[in-house]
Amino acid sequence: MSKSIFYHAGCPVCISAEHDVIDLIGHSNVQIVHLGNDKSKIDEAVRAGVKSVPALVTPKGNVLHINFGASMAEVIG
Amino acid sequence: MSKSIFYHAGCPVCISAEHDVIDLIGHSNVQIVHLGNDKSKIDEAVRAGVKSVPALVTPKGNVLHINFGASMAEVIG
Repeated sequence: MSKSIFYHAGCPVCISAEHDVIDLIGHSNVQIVHLGNDKSKIDEAVRAGVKSVPALVTPKGNVLHINFGASMAEVIG
Repeated sequence: MSKSIFYHAGCPVCISAEHDVIDLIGHSNVQIVHLGNDKSKIDEAVRAGVKSVPALVTPKGNVLHINFGASMAEVIG
């Protein structure tokens, strides 16, 4: 199974959700991408359909927006 | 480990998220509660902190609101 990708931007809501997602699906099943630290991944996230962070892109390509930390417009800055 | 509880109300966004959650964490790790069919569970969901559906309450008691199907006000009707 390919990994899920968890996109976040370091906000408190993001960090809390990151811990929950890792607890639920396991650290080995999810790649964590911090868009604040790695702005080169922002395009990839937007193309995947991420509209706000934190968000989990599943192996099937579905996007689960979890709670609400920041819009992508805020992340792009 | 105790189970997560996935609360939903039968909306298309809910059903899609339900499939994703089951794919990610496994059917045996999540209890599915359809608040439209089982209105007696609405109080329990609200007390757990569910503000909109679909939402996943983790074994630790954290609430992950996933995408957005309907507010609890709409579910309560």
